[in-house]
Amino acid sequence: MIRIAVDAMGGDFGPEVTVPASLAFLKAHEEASLLLVGLPELLHKHPQFAQLQAHTRCQVIAATETVNMDDTIETALRRKKNSSMRIAVNQVKEGNAQAAVSAGNTGALMAIARYVLKTMDGIDRPAIATQLPNAKGGATTVLDLGANVDCTEAHLLQFAVMGSALVTAISSNPSPSVGLLNIGEEVIKGSEVIKKAGELLRAAGNSGDLNFYGNVEGNDIFKGTTDIVVCDGFVGNVALKTSEGLASMIGNFMKVEFSRNILTKIAGFVAYPVLIAFKKRMDHRRYNGAALLGLQGLVFKSHGSADAFALEQALNRAYDAARNDLLKRVQDGILHAAPLLLTLQTDMNVPTSRDAVAVH
Amino acid sequence: MIRIAVDAMGGDFGPEVTVPASLAFLKAHEEASLLLVGLPELLHKHPQFAQLQAHTRCQVIAATETVNMDDTIETALRRKKNSSMRIAVNQVKEGNAQAAVSAGNTGALMAIARYVLKTMDGIDRPAIATQLPNAKGGATTVLDLGANVDCTEAHLLQFAVMGSALVTAISSNPSPSVGLLNIGEEVIKGSEVIKKAGELLRAAGNSGDLNFYGNVEGNDIFKGTTDIVVCDGFVGNVALKTSEGLASMIGNFMKVEFSRNILTKIAGFVAYPVLIAFKKRMDHRRYNGAALLGLQGLVFKSHGSADAFALEQALNRAYDAARNDLLKRVQDGILHAAPLLLTLQTDMNVPTSRDAVAVH
Repeated sequence: MIRIAVDAMGGDFGPEVTVPASLAFLKAHEEASLLLVGLPELLHKHPQFAQLQAHTRCQVIAATETVNMDDTIETALRRKKNSSMRIAVNQVKEGNAQAAVSAGNTGALMAIARYVLKTMDGIDRPAIATQLPNAKGGATTVLDLGANVDCTEAHLLQFAVMGSALVTAISSNPSPSVGLLNIGEEVIKGSEVIKKAGELLRAAGNSGDLNFYGNVEGNDIFKGTTDIVVCDGFVGNVALKTSEGLASMIGNFMKVEFSRNILTKIAGFVAYPVLIAFKKRMDHRRYNGAALLGLQGLVFKSHGSADAFALEQALNRAYDAARNDLLKRVQDGILHAAPLLLTLQTDMNVPTSRDAVAVH
Repeated sequence: MIRIAVDAMGGDFGPEVTVPASLAFLKAHEEASLLLVGLPELLHKHPQFAQLQAHTRCQVIAATETVNMDDTIETALRRKKNSSMRIAVNQVKEGNAQAAVSAGNTGALMAIARYVLKTMDGIDRPAIATQLPNAKGGATTVLDLGANVDCTEAHLLQFAVMGSALVTAISSNPSPSVGLLNIGEEVIKGSEVIKKAGELLRAAGNSGDLNFYGNVEGNDIFKGTTDIVVCDGFVGNVALKTSEGLASMIGNFMKVEFSRNILTKIAGFVAYPVLIAFKKRMDHRRYNGAALLGLQGLVFKSHGSADAFALEQALNRAYDAARNDLLKRVQDGILHAAPLLLTLQTDMNVPTSRDAVAVH
């Protein structure tokens, strides 16, 4: 039995979304159970909460406060020790749950997860990985997405190893390909760090630690050229948000054009089934649930604006990761790649520990 | 009379596109003339070339070779001294033309332009600026787009000044707003360079050198939050190519859904005028023509796959930049901001000259 801890208060909608998503998840997975962490007085207001409370595979844990979207990391970490987010992560630490899921403040979740669960041996910095739909009809896993703004080549190798472990755990792909995000396919392209990372990832590919494809460019993310795209958190965050901005602009332009006058509205009515099919293809909700990787415990972050369907996908992702032992896969991958990282420290004199990076 | 030198062989289509675009441009601008640089034997094959050759405001200059898309910078710069691209840029250097336009190899064009025209005083590195359509119905100018992968805060300030000069020259906006691309709006976000750049841009805003808005995120590019978005070339290139990849995926998904069966095809037929209006809104060809900024002469780069309409827009852009004296605007802007950059060198001990950066 896999048990997932859910921060029932997280996200823009809290129980309105987490309660129905939890019910749907329990119905779909007979081998799963939930620990629902929230403020009882608010949970009780939801009409379906009684049903969830009575469920044999759901246990409710009371929290006394909530981490807000605009709370600083300091506030979330030091002053809200009884928040639903903190208690959900604590469940993983204490072995009561195999994974935690929250739709709350990303920075706070990462800080709490790092503080409570600690970083895994051999990992300098945890990363955030998400999936984006691609032109091949599948999904491209991209990391890091904002946890780390200044990265060394060692970090990028660790991201590649962690991303590979994630994809093998949540999909049926035993050997996902990895691309290094760059501004050209040629090995001579990019910043100094990226060039060194390219050499390191190639070495990892040659030694069988990775299925390394080579450099990829921004357009390859949505082309689906590789299963995984590795980049530093600054670049990953900008790429993700730029895409969100473009998708939103395109969606609005379409709405405007179809609602311009009575004729365009009729056209929209006729085209409605096609537009719905198109929307379904583009539906990023299917890929909701970003993984916080490199910690001694599994934590998944749902989009703050997730609806019940989207949150259920994040629960599914956490469930797949837990039952396919993502934690051990990451550990094994890092252990396997350790000699390469060690060579890097000795031969190339590049700092890989967190302290060295801070000084650097 | 403004004269523009056109590399008639550049891009995926060469004269097939450059000849009709040149004719259309001359027709639209009675105060403009063109220097068409190309291989006579290939130009003569185009049915409209005779018309262009006979035009009173067009002069043809013979080249003997062409820079190819896969030529290395070394080859383009050292071995092809009689290429149409090189001769077009030479025309600017020699004062025969006020700007050059090419749809050829970007790396080669930047290298030739830097070598022939030299960098402007006070500019460490030239940058590439392009415009992207935004949700407000206007365009957001983004720079740098790949010329500079490792940037200091001084470079980012120079980009901001050059971008502002460009927008005032090619639009009717006398005081365009500048956003610094970051992974959050708060000043504490981002890498060390970005945080320092934020301080510097704020200082420039306070001293009246810039209309500085503050940090923006990836989605603000397409939202149109600011007129200009400044970032290093690595990030800008990834953002641009990721957007291209997403737009292409969306376009393909729509085609697939509308051509699925006879019913969806009928829906597509009914919705055709709306889809065309939508396509027009999204038409990036309107914004074709990236500016190479910071050189002692004006050079514009058209997209390689540009059609005649798109190339004509690049010619328009070069024409507007030349007649509104972009060169002087950039010089004035940099001169005005010079005290700030100087403070930076003295007080903060940050390298700003090209040599210092190379060592760094």
